[in-house]
Amino acid sequence: MKENIKTTAVIMAGGRGERFWPKSRNSYPKQFLSLTKDGETMIQKTVKRLLPVVEKEDIYIVTNAMYISLVKEQIPDIPEENILAEPCARNTAPCIALAGAVISRKYDDAVMLVLPSDHLISYERLYISTLKKAILTAKEGRNLVTIGITPTYPETGYGYINFGTETSSVTEDAYKVERFVEKPNLETAKEYLASGKYLWNSGMFVWKVSSIMENIKNLMPDIYEGALKIKESVGTDNFDEVLEREFQNFRSESIDFGVMEKAEDIYTISGSFGWDDVGNWLAVERINEVDSNRNYIEGDVISINSKRTTICGGKRLISAVGLEDLIIVDTDDAVLVCSKNNTQDVKKVIEELKKQGRTDLV
Amino acid sequence: MKENIKTTAVIMAGGRGERFWPKSRNSYPKQFLSLTKDGETMIQKTVKRLLPVVEKEDIYIVTNAMYISLVKEQIPDIPEENILAEPCARNTAPCIALAGAVISRKYDDAVMLVLPSDHLISYERLYISTLKKAILTAKEGRNLVTIGITPTYPETGYGYINFGTETSSVTEDAYKVERFVEKPNLETAKEYLASGKYLWNSGMFVWKVSSIMENIKNLMPDIYEGALKIKESVGTDNFDEVLEREFQNFRSESIDFGVMEKAEDIYTISGSFGWDDVGNWLAVERINEVDSNRNYIEGDVISINSKRTTICGGKRLISAVGLEDLIIVDTDDAVLVCSKNNTQDVKKVIEELKKQGRTDLV
Repeated sequence: MKENIKTTAVIMAGGRGERFWPKSRNSYPKQFLSLTKDGETMIQKTVKRLLPVVEKEDIYIVTNAMYISLVKEQIPDIPEENILAEPCARNTAPCIALAGAVISRKYDDAVMLVLPSDHLISYERLYISTLKKAILTAKEGRNLVTIGITPTYPETGYGYINFGTETSSVTEDAYKVERFVEKPNLETAKEYLASGKYLWNSGMFVWKVSSIMENIKNLMPDIYEGALKIKESVGTDNFDEVLEREFQNFRSESIDFGVMEKAEDIYTISGSFGWDDVGNWLAVERINEVDSNRNYIEGDVISINSKRTTICGGKRLISAVGLEDLIIVDTDDAVLVCSKNNTQDVKKVIEELKKQGRTDLV
Repeated sequence: MKENIKTTAVIMAGGRGERFWPKSRNSYPKQFLSLTKDGETMIQKTVKRLLPVVEKEDIYIVTNAMYISLVKEQIPDIPEENILAEPCARNTAPCIALAGAVISRKYDDAVMLVLPSDHLISYERLYISTLKKAILTAKEGRNLVTIGITPTYPETGYGYINFGTETSSVTEDAYKVERFVEKPNLETAKEYLASGKYLWNSGMFVWKVSSIMENIKNLMPDIYEGALKIKESVGTDNFDEVLEREFQNFRSESIDFGVMEKAEDIYTISGSFGWDDVGNWLAVERINEVDSNRNYIEGDVISINSKRTTICGGKRLISAVGLEDLIIVDTDDAVLVCSKNNTQDVKKVIEELKKQGRTDLV
């Protein structure tokens, strides 16, 4: 019985990705960009790497209504009804509740992988074997499984997962979660690393639809109620209308705060599969090959004596002379030249553009 | 008699100005660019600042044949016959011989100011009073007068003029030149400055047409011969043909080497009128006002935490985040991002473009 349960995947693709401005825009966020030389977009890679464990008709993509056409264009071969449109941004909990509602209408029960659409994974075979362990663990009882990433340095930009010694009955690689912790300061991050008991929270979850819906029912009954109404309308003429109304009524809530920090029976499986959240322009040199001067150069570029510089060219020539530790990104209507130490300030450019009312550039 | 002699000006506008790439191109060199916020081009400023001492119909512009239409467009109010087309580049001596030939056909004799078209002068009133002294000195006998710039630091990129104690009979401000010296090394430049006997060679000359032509006759008889043939053809149907033929036969020679380093009766008048040869992109922050972070910013730019950076925007937004000591220049088909320490390497970009056969960008 357990063995026959289907595996589905929910890809969350509603994010804005302001940190990749000027390539990413409100109308064209990071998950729809290619940041690697192979030309594949982040979401295309996300779907492709899943295919060993999930069939195409069981892949669901939840995204903001305004990105539906982008999803259809980039992922043409999954069923149209699997592309779910959020009428507004409500964080991850309503997104997962919506997907759970739709999947639970199709299947009595199913395993549900919940995955971000804009991360990168270098070792796909290791990723798949980690997913398989997580799927096995999720099938057991009411387990909620989260994929934790084995940290390689004391990152202060991620939340961490503290795990204990108890393991699941299915695999010794699934450890019981003690608690989820917020982004630490550097000192704490170093302690986490030294302890060997903390993993990075990657935002990848695996559970049975029945398990997550029961947790949503208990921990966020208001959201559960809306999700039920959506579920009842699946396949009817009212679906779009009900989805729109109920989704707008949802409060904004993350699945981490709404469920994971409160639920029981959470296990984590550590993954070491070259995960990168591709958080900002600094990632480009990590996820691509650099030249002998440690430059990453793409497009029509002439570089003279430049080092450790990332250049993403557009339609025009970019000439880089004597540069060090810079990021240059060219698009048709905007160029970014940014010091590697200041990538967090790219959002200030966007703020300024908003202030100036230049929505075409945001 | 002396008092009635006309003052004419010859503006040399044949240069390429590769160091202002990508704004300057083979087809659009520096003298035709505006590098100041007022929008006036270098050559327009050069003509305008002369008007207190030279009438428009006595201003001659010598330029490469391919820039004739640019000159006519930017300087529409001087007589068309005063715009002289060099069929090829032959340095300053043939340029001056050509202008001397044409002017000596119009006037029995005249004072001739010889001026670069692509320098900047901040204190125009002081400039005019220096020119007036030079004109007076040039009228006396066979004097050749050169305007020397009082150095403000030990520049190694200019030639120097070593002057003695003897002054002209017309003004005590015109000193007899001992010798012209090539670009010195830093140590020598410092000695020059300390001695108080060296001025920068600005390439501005003042002399009677009769004086310079006699010197050319004596020191460069081959060039003189060609110039005579051109003179004879002025006003005839053959002028263009003769000019083209004779000019192409000229050897390439600078007036400094061909005349100034060999002639007698040379005087220099020191000028302190805020001269700037606008030699490369570093000049832009010198000749314009900078903001409180010492940035010079022009065009559509959003700057966040940037310092001592020069940005010349084009049609698109440039966002500068956390930059220091950079030069950014945007044009329709090329962007330059250059460290201030490497402006001399801009020419390497041009070399690379030539190697790639991309003449449209050069």
